[in-house]
Amino acid sequence: MTLTKRSLVTIDDLSNGEIEALFSLADEMSDSMDEQFGVCRGKVMASLFFEPSTRTRLSFETAMHRLGGSVISVADARATSLAKGESIADMARVVGSYADVIVIRHPWEGAARVVADYAGIPVINAGDGGHEHPTQTLCDLYTIKKERQTIKGLKIALWGDLKHGRTIHSLAYALAKFGATIHFRSGPGLELPDYVKKKLTTEYTGRLERYDAVTGTGKGRLFPLDAIYITPSEPHQLANIPAVSMQIELKTGIDALYVTRLQRERLSPTDKEQELKENYPVVDKKLLKEKEFERTLVMHPLPRVDELAYEVDADPRSMYFKQAVRGVPIRMALIASLLGTREVSVPEEDNPFVRKVDYPVYRRGFGVRCTNPGCVSTQESEARYIKPEFKIVDYRPLTLRCAYCEHEVHPPYIASSDWHEGKLENKKYHGAGSQWARRIKAENLLIFDSEAEAEAHGFKPGHYIGQRHQDNGKKAGQRE
Amino acid sequence: MTLTKRSLVTIDDLSNGEIEALFSLADEMSDSMDEQFGVCRGKVMASLFFEPSTRTRLSFETAMHRLGGSVISVADARATSLAKGESIADMARVVGSYADVIVIRHPWEGAARVVADYAGIPVINAGDGGHEHPTQTLCDLYTIKKERQTIKGLKIALWGDLKHGRTIHSLAYALAKFGATIHFRSGPGLELPDYVKKKLTTEYTGRLERYDAVTGTGKGRLFPLDAIYITPSEPHQLANIPAVSMQIELKTGIDALYVTRLQRERLSPTDKEQELKENYPVVDKKLLKEKEFERTLVMHPLPRVDELAYEVDADPRSMYFKQAVRGVPIRMALIASLLGTREVSVPEEDNPFVRKVDYPVYRRGFGVRCTNPGCVSTQESEARYIKPEFKIVDYRPLTLRCAYCEHEVHPPYIASSDWHEGKLENKKYHGAGSQWARRIKAENLLIFDSEAEAEAHGFKPGHYIGQRHQDNGKKAGQRE
Amino acid sequence: MTLTKRSLVTIDDLSNGEIEALFSLADEMSDSMDEQFGVCRGKVMASLFFEPSTRTRLSFETAMHRLGGSVISVADARATSLAKGESIADMARVVGSYADVIVIRHPWEGAARVVADYAGIPVINAGDGGHEHPTQTLCDLYTIKKERQTIKGLKIALWGDLKHGRTIHSLAYALAKFGATIHFRSGPGLELPDYVKKKLTTEYTGRLERYDAVTGTGKGRLFPLDAIYITPSEPHQLANIPAVSMQIELKTGIDALYVTRLQRERLSPTDKEQELKENYPVVDKKLLKEKEFERTLVMHPLPRVDELAYEVDADPRSMYFKQAVRGVPIRMALIASLLGTREVSVPEEDNPFVRKVDYPVYRRGFGVRCTNPGCVSTQESEARYIKPEFKIVDYRPLTLRCAYCEHEVHPPYIASSDWHEGKLENKKYHGAGSQWARRIKAENLLIFDSEAEAEAHGFKPGHYIGQRHQDNGKKAGQRE
Repeated sequence: MTLTKRSLVTIDDLSNGEIEALFSLADEMSDSMDEQFGVCRGKVMASLFFEPSTRTRLSFETAMHRLGGSVISVADARATSLAKGESIADMARVVGSYADVIVIRHPWEGAARVVADYAGIPVINAGDGGHEHPTQTLCDLYTIKKERQTIKGLKIALWGDLKHGRTIHSLAYALAKFGATIHFRSGPGLELPDYVKKKLTTEYTGRLERYDAVTGTGKGRLFPLDAIYITPSEPHQLANIPAVSMQIELKTGIDALYVTRLQRERLSPTDKEQELKENYPVVDKKLLKEKEFERTLVMHPLPRVDELAYEVDADPRSMYFKQAVRGVPIRMALIASLLGTREVSVPEEDNPFVRKVDYPVYRRGFGVRCTNPGCVSTQESEARYIKPEFKIVDYRPLTLRCAYCEHEVHPPYIASSDWHEGKLENKKYHGAGSQWARRIKAENLLIFDSEAEAEAHGFKPGHYIGQRHQDNGKKAGQRE
Repeated sequence: MTLTKRSLVTIDDLSNGEIEALFSLADEMSDSMDEQFGVCRGKVMASLFFEPSTRTRLSFETAMHRLGGSVISVADARATSLAKGESIADMARVVGSYADVIVIRHPWEGAARVVADYAGIPVINAGDGGHEHPTQTLCDLYTIKKERQTIKGLKIALWGDLKHGRTIHSLAYALAKFGATIHFRSGPGLELPDYVKKKLTTEYTGRLERYDAVTGTGKGRLFPLDAIYITPSEPHQLANIPAVSMQIELKTGIDALYVTRLQRERLSPTDKEQELKENYPVVDKKLLKEKEFERTLVMHPLPRVDELAYEVDADPRSMYFKQAVRGVPIRMALIASLLGTREVSVPEEDNPFVRKVDYPVYRRGFGVRCTNPGCVSTQESEARYIKPEFKIVDYRPLTLRCAYCEHEVHPPYIASSDWHEGKLENKKYHGAGSQWARRIKAENLLIFDSEAEAEAHGFKPGHYIGQRHQDNGKKAGQRE
Repeated sequence: MTLTKRSLVTIDDLSNGEIEALFSLADEMSDSMDEQFGVCRGKVMASLFFEPSTRTRLSFETAMHRLGGSVISVADARATSLAKGESIADMARVVGSYADVIVIRHPWEGAARVVADYAGIPVINAGDGGHEHPTQTLCDLYTIKKERQTIKGLKIALWGDLKHGRTIHSLAYALAKFGATIHFRSGPGLELPDYVKKKLTTEYTGRLERYDAVTGTGKGRLFPLDAIYITPSEPHQLANIPAVSMQIELKTGIDALYVTRLQRERLSPTDKEQELKENYPVVDKKLLKEKEFERTLVMHPLPRVDELAYEVDADPRSMYFKQAVRGVPIRMALIASLLGTREVSVPEEDNPFVRKVDYPVYRRGFGVRCTNPGCVSTQESEARYIKPEFKIVDYRPLTLRCAYCEHEVHPPYIASSDWHEGKLENKKYHGAGSQWARRIKAENLLIFDSEAEAEAHGFKPGHYIGQRHQDNGKKAGQRE
């Protein structure tokens, strides 16, 4: 396997072996930094940051300069032709014809996917809204690996804004991929989004339990936990983790405590910032005196605000500045690999904690749209050319995962493109919860997010829907 | 002829031969891109963008990096000392002492001329307000040349915002220079400015006709045309293009259809954006099925908004992404030529479609100012040191062309610095439309844009003006 | 002495010998500019500009490029994670782990000191609020040196906004260090700040006199003077400059006239810009006809607004564009020296005009804070980790100089950490003007900026303060 010409949009784009291979290359590069100058001579990296950034942008640009390459840079959305209403697909095509690799940060979720689809050159996602930030995860894992020698089967606590924190989402998937146990503890109202939980338990081999389901009142614990994700050490344990083993699990030490700031810039207008701050978890000297943190790596993606006290900076367990430092060699390794100026040798694939699932894809381009207002596919400038696209990840209830932002959609109506064909009187639509959902072949399935949409495509209400219309007032879609 | 140390402010700064020579160098450079790295080693390009840009700025910067040079960059007007009230002439002198070449984009028309006047190093205009954008024109012509093998005598349609589109103005001059036929079709209220029309017909050998003057109602045509510019194929045909040949002209195919977006950022507060959008020309699949577009290159300077449908992207006639791609080699050729790190060999001059006219220059620095509110010479910070300067392009009526923005001014009063000398009682000013305008020698001519201005310089009303004052109420200047 | 790995935060960080050594290196570099390419090959400079700049940023970046190094750049505070509430100390640590040298401009006074404290790599102050701008001073002195062959013992006039002008402050210290005579002339309300005056007379060997104290009404003078700083040519003259010698001083010519613009962006909301502009000194042709300016170098740090007329540009005495030009070699010399890629040979130290004073340092981190609202140590995001720190520069009255912004604080109360120990009833605080201020040993001194603060730390009012409380209404602190 080679990484040449590939893109890194989500952390899923890399196998465990590829991640480990990048770490080896990063080790080699940081051991001989001066010799790397020239590895990317004559190459041009486009550094496109449409959201504020210091660390990530400067670390990517430093990485390219240390490799002897050149950088073209956008550091302010308002200074670009996106301000003139240009779509990011057009921008991607054009910049893709100038540069050799693109690094993109954008507030819209799924934006990096669109850029990767259109640029024609390798694209690296440096953060797309609240969705993912896979290179931060590489820095995080690399730091754990350097300090603990392995990243397999560790016990990691993720604290803070689990809802909006894109670094959290990417890291959680990566940890699951390496068979970790994850303790989730959010500020109130900042829990892990449903689509992330769902993905954790359907794409990886672990099991997610609400903490109170395991330990009751949580008595005797230092701090509340929302949930715990446990990877069984052997596949056959999968359905069979006794609650008692979780109890034991909670009593042993934590390998790393990863805390994030409240992502103020992603709050919705109805969120009350002051309330969200009030019971926000804080890491300070006192907390780190607890026995279970005795050997814990204290991690943070930075920037921090108040959730990580300055008094901890001198503590040898504090890793957050090391995480930042390691951003340069890890990104050097990544850039050189994608450009193909350095080959990484990837060991035989072995991803025991990843479930292979081949979800059917739904991309008819009509009938249903993503409901996430931050999704790139729903923006006015982008909807002109991006066709909605989904994976069908569940039928009970019918659940679509947006191909761009990965949020889930539960559309209420379905129909078939086939078995009514030619018989107009049979062209009917049904509730998505009805028996039809599973009886219609995937390639014939039509999905609608409203009755109006279904009817606009020439379908009439099916039997039960019609009846319900007569009953006048029952709720749609789930009970036919 | 060498391009070394010269500037490119308007497309007129390059002869046909020089343009063709740049294209040859661009061909050579794109065929051996890797070998160009080092051509500008140790050189520094200042990339000064005081208006939003992605494409143009990144393409210039990529070009410099591909040549192995370095870039210093301003991507936001608010982040510079212009925000402290500095004049662009001072800025130009200072940056000119740092860098080896300056690329400047600025909202004021004529700004690039000022920078070129003061920088002391080669300056490239990357767009000055609604005035010109000559390197976009080079990309456009280069694309046409690559696809059609020639840029001489083609038939090109220019559609969209002809009023504010600086790429349109530069391109129209360039096409005229190469003997093209140009079909103009604007959105309503977005016609070609008068000063551009005037320049087209006085500086080049072609003739501009309103379309309805040629074909009557335009019946049978696919789309309305504002005007058509025709270059006679032989000079002696100049005054003698029969209407019937234009009729024929309209029936044959178009070589290239060049459409631009509505330049929202240049609208005046009284412009109604919604109205301007309503009948804006749109290029889509349906349009391109028409016979006359069968072999037409579809061109656009990008960014696009709604005037060019995405459905056309896959059409082999679509050239707009190729235009963008070619921006890099064309700009590499230009930068290397101006810096003198590559010599271009320019064939013997032959510009048969350009009229040599030597207009008298008026630069007394008083009496009359440019009336274009976007002109650099009228800005408060610049008026401290820029003297108004004009070419006298016509006497009936007296017409001055601003040396900076090229807009036309029609000042109402004149006087002479000579023949009243010493005889104060004879120091009189006259209407610009009077016989005196042609009787006063150019070197003695004084021009005033108001009676107050004339009187402030010690002149009294001439006979007819005085009489008119008595008549009390006639309109000034045209009827003495 | 070597400059390698050192920082330049204030002009005091360089000895006279080091400054002269940098000038020699700059001479050498500008004589062989092409040979310098490669001197910093593989090095990365972070150029962090959190305030508008053209000249300084582009000149630093050009300098690094001319040395063959790379640049990572921030040109807009809003585009960085400081916008997310990050402290500059965190930012400094992170960027310090990416780059090899940092250049920082920031609106907070003392910000460069904080960056230098945390970055772990050489830091260059490119302007911190109204505090200092030492590299501008290097350009200024370098220009004087090139034109006058020496920078020792010259007579220099500093005009304009002496209050907010950071270039003025750095230059005044440097001139004092080289034994200059300085004529100060400010716009009304824009006089030199007290802390700068105090520093001039306590850290250097000269004497500062108000002009009217010297010459009475100033009759016969061309222009008003606020004050004059005179360095005696021999140390024993120190206390003994007769007024008559000053009179003579004023009649001879000025070596350089340095004028600055009104620093609008630093005015407080109560400043009336219009009033400040009204009697602002202006340098124009007429002024320069005066005999005392016959051989005067006309200098300005640029950008200028109205205080320096364009008509002077062509005058051979005008140096301001030369100052700008020389910014590149001087900054090349500085960067290469701090990075250690070029060694400068520094002659034996000889700073005859600098007084060695070893002020006691006060850094308990409580009791008293800097009162300058622009000081970095008082900003919300920074106060989390920066401990207030002061030099005790005077006891009558008690005067602290902030270690960050150098503004002076006059705290009203003191106590001792020692001689009350164990005897709670004796734990008293006193007025800072009382006899106790000098009786308490420096290492035991506690300082409070309010009674509340003193009482919060467990102290009770001393005898006189208590009495005054009974007298109810006398003013605090100075009369115990």
